Amino acid sequence: MKNYPKTISNLIECFRKLPGIGEKTAERLALSVLELDDNVTELFSDSIKDIKKKIRRCKICNNLSEEETCDLCKDSSRNHEIICVVEEPKNVVSIEKVGTYHGDYHVLDGLISPLDGVNPEDINIDSLIKRIESHPVKEVIIAVKPSIEGETTALYIKKKLEGFPVIVSKIAHGVPVGIDMDYIDALTLETALEDRKKISES
Amino acid sequence: MKNYPKTISNLIECFRKLPGIGEKTAERLALSVLELDDNVTELFSDSIKDIKKKIRRCKICNNLSEEETCDLCKDSSRNHEIICVVEEPKNVVSIEKVGTYHGDYHVLDGLISPLDGVNPEDINIDSLIKRIESHPVKEVIIAVKPSIEGETTALYIKKKLEGFPVIVSKIAHGVPVGIDMDYIDALTLETALEDRKKISES
Repeated sequence: MKNYPKTISNLIECFRKLPGIGEKTAERLALSVLELDDNVTELFSDSIKDIKKKIRRCKICNNLSEEETCDLCKDSSRNHEIICVVEEPKNVVSIEKVGTYHGDYHVLDGLISPLDGVNPEDINIDSLIKRIESHPVKEVIIAVKPSIEGETTALYIKKKLEGFPVIVSKIAHGVPVGIDMDYIDALTLETALEDRKKISES
Repeated sequence: MKNYPKTISNLIECFRKLPGIGEKTAERLALSVLELDDNVTELFSDSIKDIKKKIRRCKICNNLSEEETCDLCKDSSRNHEIICVVEEPKNVVSIEKVGTYHGDYHVLDGLISPLDGVNPEDINIDSLIKRIESHPVKEVIIAVKPSIEGETTALYIKKKLEGFPVIVSKIAHGVPVGIDMDYIDALTLETALEDRKKISES
């Protein structure tokens, strides 16, 4: 940005390259870096410099990792006979936060979306199939969002796994816990009704 | 954040130190750094590392600068007989963007606010007075926001400059250009009415 010293205008330009950061926000963020402690700016600078060098994908599950195999795949206390299939690395973190799932993951890096030119071979489905071929598992849980792309991807994986001695399941879609029924859209309600669960045997 | 490799969780923590950036946004931004080009991450990293070393305050106007005297103060084509007093460095950039003002600036770095413990001696008013003592100017334009703090600061500067052969003025406060009258708050309307400007002589 004009009229700022070069270092500041460079930093503003860098912040602007991040998604969802406009000119005003970039300016505010760059100026606020001036107020950070020296140890924070050092860590900040080093992390940005290192992140692309150090971070790669786990060769098993394709999750973000600093080593060839990620911590989750290496963890012998986890149940390696269940694979939870997610769209992005951050979904792994969300599910880990819940703390009740102790199986493995597989990061697809996208969902099938022919309209956007994303075909099955563009996302990590082949590596999932190969993984199951070489290390048979008991269950594959598909945990992708319930959009057309998510459903297409789930269906495709299900078909690809036909013939394997593996249960394919999908996380439940329905009314979120703690949300007022009035605010639920029709499609979610329809799914919630369809996927209703018996709570007593007649 | 747990479950991200160290470099990523460090970067998330750094983003979280910036004002207005919550956990989710910090996560999104840190992951998006992975997608940036190498030359951008390098510039980004260097700018953050350099900014606190390279950026200092101009010894004349207290604006952000990479040298002892900022580019604006050094610019001989500007009118050094007018000083525009602003709260923060970014106000200088906003006014420069307008492009019609060609005088000098003075950055206060705050406004008088006794309730928040900010007294006149805590902001750069003394340096303004000394500056005017050593290099007399024709006009001091106070361009701070029309809040209680802004008004207090303007009044204080006006009093401090009594006895100097200098005109003290304040930027106009009123209805912003292009805004529907319906959306203007009562206080702004009151100011706009009070500060009305004759457009014909009766």
